[in-house]
Amino acid sequence: MTEFTKPNHKRAKKPAHVIEKERSRRAGAAETLMLFGLHAVRDALSNPAREKLRLMVTQNAALRLEEAIAASGITPEIFDARQFNPPIDRDSVHQGAVLEVKPLNWGSVSELCAPHNDAPLVLLLDRVTDPHNVGAILRSAEVFGTRAVIAPHRHSAPETGALAKTASGALERQPYLRVPNLAGAMNSLREMGYTILGLDGEAALDLRDIAAKLPDGPIALAMGAEGPGLRSLTKDLCHHLVRIPAAAEFASLNVSNATAVALYAVAQR
Amino acid sequence: MTEFTKPNHKRAKKPAHVIEKERSRRAGAAETLMLFGLHAVRDALSNPAREKLRLMVTQNAALRLEEAIAASGITPEIFDARQFNPPIDRDSVHQGAVLEVKPLNWGSVSELCAPHNDAPLVLLLDRVTDPHNVGAILRSAEVFGTRAVIAPHRHSAPETGALAKTASGALERQPYLRVPNLAGAMNSLREMGYTILGLDGEAALDLRDIAAKLPDGPIALAMGAEGPGLRSLTKDLCHHLVRIPAAAEFASLNVSNATAVALYAVAQR
Repeated sequence: MTEFTKPNHKRAKKPAHVIEKERSRRAGAAETLMLFGLHAVRDALSNPAREKLRLMVTQNAALRLEEAIAASGITPEIFDARQFNPPIDRDSVHQGAVLEVKPLNWGSVSELCAPHNDAPLVLLLDRVTDPHNVGAILRSAEVFGTRAVIAPHRHSAPETGALAKTASGALERQPYLRVPNLAGAMNSLREMGYTILGLDGEAALDLRDIAAKLPDGPIALAMGAEGPGLRSLTKDLCHHLVRIPAAAEFASLNVSNATAVALYAVAQR
Repeated sequence: MTEFTKPNHKRAKKPAHVIEKERSRRAGAAETLMLFGLHAVRDALSNPAREKLRLMVTQNAALRLEEAIAASGITPEIFDARQFNPPIDRDSVHQGAVLEVKPLNWGSVSELCAPHNDAPLVLLLDRVTDPHNVGAILRSAEVFGTRAVIAPHRHSAPETGALAKTASGALERQPYLRVPNLAGAMNSLREMGYTILGLDGEAALDLRDIAAKLPDGPIALAMGAEGPGLRSLTKDLCHHLVRIPAAAEFASLNVSNATAVALYAVAQR
């Protein structure tokens, strides 16, 4: 099953939450995705942790990826450029290179985010669904040394070729965990001693003021989607809600820009 | 002439720079653009400074924009949704509303950027061409109280419907000037007492360190395109080159995210 097809099971009458759980489990096990574009494919070929299933390339792309292909050990399927019709969205700028892979397995929140006498920074995305925004966010997360980016399975941007392309290599290196339940992850982080800041346009506290006073321990930042913002349960699990003050009444930041600013402000401790 | 059509003049043999100048002058005088989407159209209708030429809407969109249309005084052309075929790119999500307008006239660099016993912040974009990045940058510029965003006429993102949509209203409010020559604008800013910082991944100075030591006067920030970065002449006209340090070797920020971080760092003086 690829990211472009979905199974069409005939279902017995099970409760919705059971169906949902089963669907997630099946998708998690069977899911593969198509990476495309020379950059994204090269980065994935060079990543030993990435399970590679099938490489489809034009002759020209095979030459340009020669070293990465050799190092990866995969046998490419080489196509004449005029007959190259890979199973991805027609508008995708594939540059003659498509690689089918499994999503990366970054382990659990408790393994990955446990502090080891240090002060890790973790980013929580509450229903940020646009793959271009999430791609840019993964780049920023990597720049500011974020231990993990955590998003819920549902209503988030899955690992896809489009996300990988916008992430410009960061998808191979920046842990991006999708969890069944964001509140569960937040509770784990709280138990591990994290202070959780939620970005909220209505908050009274200024990010700048609070960033200067943060404790030395681990920090998590929670970002909501543009428009709806953080869900009410997410807000309840934050220690502080803060805003990035705007100089003008109707001004607002794009979610990836707001995330970059918040990571910068917090990483400066 | 709209943004989608270009004149096909038969040319006498003039030197290339003369042809270029004439083309720019003609384009500047005749240029109109198509804004689309309920948000962008509403924002433009509500902007008294925006010269509106033609409003094409479906019946449904006319209802949703009723107040803004009445306040603007424009007479809409109302279409049946099934026959609505506006002269814009097919993939554009127009939501039944298209408004043909003139670009905004923000005046000259010397008028707009002159300090009046204050410390204005100005943003220079050196060949940042992607309209989605520039749209997000205009939003950030507005949030951090930027006096003007300045880009060269050539090799920049022109005011278009796609840019307006990404800018989410900021195009109507945030001065965005395209000038014949970025170096000329930088020289004007230097004469007006601006300190110009250029963002450059190879720079030795850390943005954080320099932001803390900036003088109280006017500041300009210069951002280059991803990949090529600032051109060499642009670098020469900066007072300081600074970088945003990355925690990992291959990590880098998307240009709009880098701009948001730099504006935040400098606006905190």
